[in-house]
Amino acid sequence: MPDLNFSIKGVSENPTKFVAEARNFKIIIDEPPTLGGTDHGANPVEYLLASYAGCLNVMGHLIAGELGFKLDKLEIEINGDLNPARLFGTSFDERAGFKNIQVTVKPFADISAELLQKWIDAVENRCPINDNLRAITPVGITILNN
Amino acid sequence: MPDLNFSIKGVSENPTKFVAEARNFKIIIDEPPTLGGTDHGANPVEYLLASYAGCLNVMGHLIAGELGFKLDKLEIEINGDLNPARLFGTSFDERAGFKNIQVTVKPFADISAELLQKWIDAVENRCPINDNLRAITPVGITILNN
Repeated sequence: MPDLNFSIKGVSENPTKFVAEARNFKIIIDEPPTLGGTDHGANPVEYLLASYAGCLNVMGHLIAGELGFKLDKLEIEINGDLNPARLFGTSFDERAGFKNIQVTVKPFADISAELLQKWIDAVENRCPINDNLRAITPVGITILNN
Repeated sequence: MPDLNFSIKGVSENPTKFVAEARNFKIIIDEPPTLGGTDHGANPVEYLLASYAGCLNVMGHLIAGELGFKLDKLEIEINGDLNPARLFGTSFDERAGFKNIQVTVKPFADISAELLQKWIDAVENRCPINDNLRAITPVGITILNN
C-alpha cells in the first residue's frame, strides 16, 4: 500500500492558544488558567490522550469486525502523569512528557475471554497512535526565519 | 514539583466516531469517508499532529519570554507519513504509526540566528509532546469486561 500523508497547519492566537486546521476541521488548543492559559480549548497533552482513544476506537471496531463479533459500544478512559519541572525549566531530572499512560477500555460485546485477549492484542499491535507513543518516532524540525 | 495528572474519557458513537471529554471540553474524533468514517471531526493522527503544534506553541512563547524576546506570532505546519497496511492488517512489514514527522515552524521575531537556535533547542528539549513522540512511553492497558 502507498504511504498516506497527514498534515495540519495553524497559527498562534496568543501565547497559549493555537488554532490548527486539519482539512476542513478547526482544532483549538489552549491551556487552563492554572497553566497560564486562556482556556479556550483542551490542552496539548489532553489532545494527545483523546487522539489515542479515538485511534483505539477505530481499531477496536475494525478488528471486532474481522474477528466476527459485534462491538456494541466502547468506553475508553486514559490518563497520564507528567512532571512539569522540565517544561517550566526548573529541573531537568525528569523527562518532559508523560512518564506513563494508563488506558482503560470497556468493550460492550458478548465474547469469551480468549477472544477478548486476541482482540486487544491486535488493537495494540495495529493502532498508529499506540505505536507512535510506545516506540521512537523520527522528527525533523525546520525553522523558517521570518 | 509534584506530578500532574491529565485525563480524558469518552465513548464510541459509531465505529469510527469517538466523543472524548477533557475537563469541560468535547473532542470529536472521526475518520474521513476515504478511511471508512463518518467525517464528523479530524482523525486520530491529525489530532496527534495538532497536539504537537499546540505544545510547540506554548513552549515557544514560554521560552521566548525566558530568553527576553518578543514572539509576535508563530506559524506551525506539521505533516507525517504512515503506511496503512498494518492498520488494515494486510501486511506487518512496516510500523503502524507515523514513520516520520516533519515540523516547520515560522517564528515572527526580530532575533539573531544564534538566539533562534537556542530557542528551538530549548523548545525541543522541554516540549512534552515532542518527548512522548521521540522517546518510548510506557503504556498500561486494562480491559473492563462488561
